[in-house]
Amino acid sequence: MSFNTPINRFGTHSVKWDSMEAIYGVPADDGIAMWVADMDFAPPACVQRALEGMLAHGVYGYYGDDAGYLDAIRWWMQTRHGWTVERDQIFTTHGLVNGTAMCIDAFTKPGDGVVLFTPIYHAFARVIKAADRQVVECKLANVNGRYEMDFDAWDAQMTGNETMLILCSPHNPGGRVWSVEELQGVADFCKRHNLLLVSDEIHHDLVMPGQKHTVMATLPDISERLVMMTATTKTFNIAGAHSGNVIIADPKLRATFAQRINAMGVSPNSFGLFMAAAAYSPEGAAWVDELCSYLQGNAQIFNEGIAQIPGLKSMPLEATYLAWVDFAATGMPAAEFIDRVQKGARIATNYGTPFGAGGESYLRFNLATPRAVVVEAVKRLQMAFADLQ
Amino acid sequence: MSFNTPINRFGTHSVKWDSMEAIYGVPADDGIAMWVADMDFAPPACVQRALEGMLAHGVYGYYGDDAGYLDAIRWWMQTRHGWTVERDQIFTTHGLVNGTAMCIDAFTKPGDGVVLFTPIYHAFARVIKAADRQVVECKLANVNGRYEMDFDAWDAQMTGNETMLILCSPHNPGGRVWSVEELQGVADFCKRHNLLLVSDEIHHDLVMPGQKHTVMATLPDISERLVMMTATTKTFNIAGAHSGNVIIADPKLRATFAQRINAMGVSPNSFGLFMAAAAYSPEGAAWVDELCSYLQGNAQIFNEGIAQIPGLKSMPLEATYLAWVDFAATGMPAAEFIDRVQKGARIATNYGTPFGAGGESYLRFNLATPRAVVVEAVKRLQMAFADLQ
Repeated sequence: MSFNTPINRFGTHSVKWDSMEAIYGVPADDGIAMWVADMDFAPPACVQRALEGMLAHGVYGYYGDDAGYLDAIRWWMQTRHGWTVERDQIFTTHGLVNGTAMCIDAFTKPGDGVVLFTPIYHAFARVIKAADRQVVECKLANVNGRYEMDFDAWDAQMTGNETMLILCSPHNPGGRVWSVEELQGVADFCKRHNLLLVSDEIHHDLVMPGQKHTVMATLPDISERLVMMTATTKTFNIAGAHSGNVIIADPKLRATFAQRINAMGVSPNSFGLFMAAAAYSPEGAAWVDELCSYLQGNAQIFNEGIAQIPGLKSMPLEATYLAWVDFAATGMPAAEFIDRVQKGARIATNYGTPFGAGGESYLRFNLATPRAVVVEAVKRLQMAFADLQ
Repeated sequence: MSFNTPINRFGTHSVKWDSMEAIYGVPADDGIAMWVADMDFAPPACVQRALEGMLAHGVYGYYGDDAGYLDAIRWWMQTRHGWTVERDQIFTTHGLVNGTAMCIDAFTKPGDGVVLFTPIYHAFARVIKAADRQVVECKLANVNGRYEMDFDAWDAQMTGNETMLILCSPHNPGGRVWSVEELQGVADFCKRHNLLLVSDEIHHDLVMPGQKHTVMATLPDISERLVMMTATTKTFNIAGAHSGNVIIADPKLRATFAQRINAMGVSPNSFGLFMAAAAYSPEGAAWVDELCSYLQGNAQIFNEGIAQIPGLKSMPLEATYLAWVDFAATGMPAAEFIDRVQKGARIATNYGTPFGAGGESYLRFNLATPRAVVVEAVKRLQMAFADLQ
């Protein structure tokens, strides 16, 4: 296996590749899809073998006995993250958009304010609004091209109507691995304003070598207001399985969430369970280590290339494979830099505006693709903005 | 392919087989699992090939372009059921327990009465109660060992607090294919009492040769209060995919449901989509025809065998593979006939009580297993009740 091996995803119902032309006008025969956050890599062999085993057996009935699955999660969290999880703390939802929605449904009321540190993963605001809750945007401070917390400003913003904070840790789209001090600040902020803290740590395995992610649940005195969210789907590139974990240590919060899980008739599909049990293993861990090194290499090439374009600035990636590029200093309106990226460079990216306040001058580039594709993308971007040189 | 070929499901996370001993005390080495409603058969080759294709590609990212999937559903409903469905009427939920729960959540309020014609599929009452709605049990009339509607009695039961009826058509566990007249009676009942009608037709493909299922949506003047539920999972034995369809023709009901789907962050897993698109095909149809003939043969052997045991009576199966056996005439308390079935015959079945009023003296036997297993089960039951001969 090599991450350099190109895999043709056209005609496979890949939304990233197959819908690129329809949505962005970026031509399929020559375009580069760098939007949707999945990877152009196959998952580790242990995951493939799990599916081969299912296929060889050939009967796909109701799944029972999830002890091995739960213990694989526990092993992974303990071994990789120093986080002790018990079986009965683990819920399986249909991915973490569903997990987030279930948290909003279980723990807030219509009209409540839900706090987001923006720019942030766009689906949060979508489900908050769809549930008739209020999105409360607290803008991250951009300190020399790196996001930092701004608690003084945010304290002043709180009205008392807010009941939940959804944290993205590591941060999508800014690529930050929050420090222990920053995370403690978030915990204190939630206590000061009586907010339930939902910590979405879906990117917690995709941390660049040299960086250290801290699991929110390992902080002291936070568990009574904490809901954790994790998943195999981002780490192992199995988003199609639509499977995620909501992990709750506090018995009262857990009972409330369990009641909603039962009322919504949520139970997991067996493909996600088989793949997760296989992925959360030493073989899976070794693959993730290789993956992170590879992604770091891609990020380095991308950021060095972007740095050569006057007016463009890519945030340093401490985690995730999502480069967050600021076009503000070009002085161009969004329509123009988007046009140059889509029509000039033939690259499909995520627009910054749906990520919330502070994202307007940005585009998000997905770097989880063979290195040659990243190199080609950089070359195209340099050409598309060559007049700025 | 032959339905006679035994497939060993032990050690495959099959809840039906692997959890039988823990739940029922029926020994794994000698027991027969006839409870959970999945089949001991592999799905048709077209479904297996769809999975093989996914595996050969090896990337399981976000799924896009569901037009082919939706058109496969439309083709199936038109061709097999004479029912015209449009793409934008189709929602995909995480199976039909989730679909039912989403309907309750979208269309009723806490405290509302939800009507069930009992005995009925046990999960309905579970999700109704979990959502803090009231279960309103309307008992089916047992007319010579066959369930019939009893609208006069049910009219008298209605209080005005009821807002929804969940119909099971064909009927689980009674195996009835409701006639057009009966279905029209249900539609009229819903109009008289201003009930939203949720028609769960998950068994609509598993209809015995000679029987004719009528899709509720094909009746006149019902669409403005009708929600349909269908799935590939029961028909093709792919319950592990946890995928189902809620199909709504009425634009207002559809908008309400769509809003809840968005707020709950529900989107389907790709395994269910790939398998459904492959299953709803001419090859899938031919397999279902063979399957239904085979199941009819199993039902005939089972019912003839049961008929030879004094005091036991199995309902004639017009649809489904679920035999509903009445032990009332044995005069035994439930504990005794259950003991004879579990300890004597070493067979795990579903108990009747969770199916609601009228189910207390019944056990439900799953006949979707190789014929030799059905023959053996009958032999064991005859021995376990031999003293009644």
